[in-house]
Amino acid sequence: MKSLAFSALAFVLPMASWADPLPSWTDSASKQQIIAFVDSVTDPSGENYVTPAERIAVFDNDGTLWAEQPVYFQFIFAMDRLAELAEKDPSILSTPALKAAAEGDLQTVLEGGHDALIEVVNASHSGSSVEEFQSEVAEWLNTTRHPVTDLPYDQMTYQPMVELLRYLRDEGFKTYIVSGGGLHFMRVFAQEAYGIPPEQILGTYGETVYDSSADTPVINKAPGIAFIDDKEGKPINIERTIGKRPILAGGNSDGDFAMLEWTTAGDGPRLGVLVHHTDADREWAYDRESPIGRLVDGLDKGPDMGWVIVDMANDWSRIYTGAN
Amino acid sequence: MKSLAFSALAFVLPMASWADPLPSWTDSASKQQIIAFVDSVTDPSGENYVTPAERIAVFDNDGTLWAEQPVYFQFIFAMDRLAELAEKDPSILSTPALKAAAEGDLQTVLEGGHDALIEVVNASHSGSSVEEFQSEVAEWLNTTRHPVTDLPYDQMTYQPMVELLRYLRDEGFKTYIVSGGGLHFMRVFAQEAYGIPPEQILGTYGETVYDSSADTPVINKAPGIAFIDDKEGKPINIERTIGKRPILAGGNSDGDFAMLEWTTAGDGPRLGVLVHHTDADREWAYDRESPIGRLVDGLDKGPDMGWVIVDMANDWSRIYTGAN
Repeated sequence: MKSLAFSALAFVLPMASWADPLPSWTDSASKQQIIAFVDSVTDPSGENYVTPAERIAVFDNDGTLWAEQPVYFQFIFAMDRLAELAEKDPSILSTPALKAAAEGDLQTVLEGGHDALIEVVNASHSGSSVEEFQSEVAEWLNTTRHPVTDLPYDQMTYQPMVELLRYLRDEGFKTYIVSGGGLHFMRVFAQEAYGIPPEQILGTYGETVYDSSADTPVINKAPGIAFIDDKEGKPINIERTIGKRPILAGGNSDGDFAMLEWTTAGDGPRLGVLVHHTDADREWAYDRESPIGRLVDGLDKGPDMGWVIVDMANDWSRIYTGAN
Repeated sequence: MKSLAFSALAFVLPMASWADPLPSWTDSASKQQIIAFVDSVTDPSGENYVTPAERIAVFDNDGTLWAEQPVYFQFIFAMDRLAELAEKDPSILSTPALKAAAEGDLQTVLEGGHDALIEVVNASHSGSSVEEFQSEVAEWLNTTRHPVTDLPYDQMTYQPMVELLRYLRDEGFKTYIVSGGGLHFMRVFAQEAYGIPPEQILGTYGETVYDSSADTPVINKAPGIAFIDDKEGKPINIERTIGKRPILAGGNSDGDFAMLEWTTAGDGPRLGVLVHHTDADREWAYDRESPIGRLVDGLDKGPDMGWVIVDMANDWSRIYTGAN
């Protein structure tokens, strides 16, 4: 009977495409370009047809699939966790940057530059097993809300992008996250928030060590960053992990430029999508001058390369998954 | 009509399991243990049931899925390629190890130890784009034969293991390679030889760089090894790339010990499978004393951990895919 149920499902699913696959997008040129691309690569009789095995779509996370203001959510987690760890053992706040972070003084941490950020990440993201770390993240997501929207962070996903991910999968694409954010951090919520399983998440990762000294061997998170999945690191990581040049890439900042450039430079039909944060009323408006999500190259060169520049204020009828 | 055809297929496929899923295995205890495990984790009414998303199976390649004697096939490729490159530019043979390798003098290279091996790999595996390198590998596989069996290397896959991979996939498993061999090298033949796509291959990889100076940006192979996917590196790479602890792991040497140990230490039903090379007539017989595929820990500790130790001479009725 199971096989029969699956068969019925397989027969019904294609009909879903008669409905609007992107209901939270206005009837804009962006939406039309995206749908025309998907129609083109999935039409078996068309010259742009792409086999399902090659329908790889990659998306940045921060600022592309969920919000990233006033600072990357993972950094807020890092500061919160540091404060919690310091309650048990104040001696871990051994530098000015760590003290500032535990007090939530973001400004001072950022003024400390790269070294300060690494100190904060090392102190808050290592010293436990991967499983223990991910339990902490899950607990934090369940109990913390965003200072501006008062939404749980994992409800600040962009509903139009959640729809785009689902639409692509319905059309035979395999969807991946390729983010400068932390691999272990994202895996905690990406399955539920985006329908993307752990093995389709690429991100920045710290050093890990195999520890077989316990009864049950585990992987522990250690200090030090092993790979930074940003800028040129994105195409490099995609090549290593997926081994195929994607046919669709989505991002929102210059950290995504190389990924979109590499994706859209391939033979045959390709699509680059850049989310442009233009909506100061419903979200945030920022691009060229923003320390978070800085977008210059994409705006200057993207249009000539045929990339879709999504105008958030005009192209999206709804922003957050967690609020209408 | 396409949907209808898929529906028919979905209805017919389960019936294939009535036939023997492992015809190249004798009716041994090993085979019975493997089938009992698969039956157990796929029975929705049983207490050992595992959801398809968690049915992750990982396999070493050299000595587990294909042969590895008299030396790893990739190393024969490296020596052949070095000789070819030296024909055009003899100056690249700048060290004794490189000269020896280009002459096929394996003994001298091995005596040079780790540094000599790195020299040979760097000289033969870098300096081109990933695509160019993989074209070279494909050409080599198409034109070269094994010195002992006279078979093409990619026909020296173990037919019983090819059947096991297919059986696992038919039962809802996702099959991965996790090998000390080169990532880019394996991706050339793994889809056809094993039915395993590029994104399910984990291996050792060299440094790569993103080069956007050309008209079409590419990923180039650079000197230097970025990650060695052996011993503790295997569970570390699985955690990074797949993000789940597998429920089945297969290997053949002590380089696979940590992977099998980590896999079988997880909660619930787990299976470790070690291929023991016991067949001097049809293949090779080696274990504790072999410089290639050394197997000591697995033989000493595996049985107590419930691992299946495959006795190649007795458990397999056929060895190579390319020869009956």
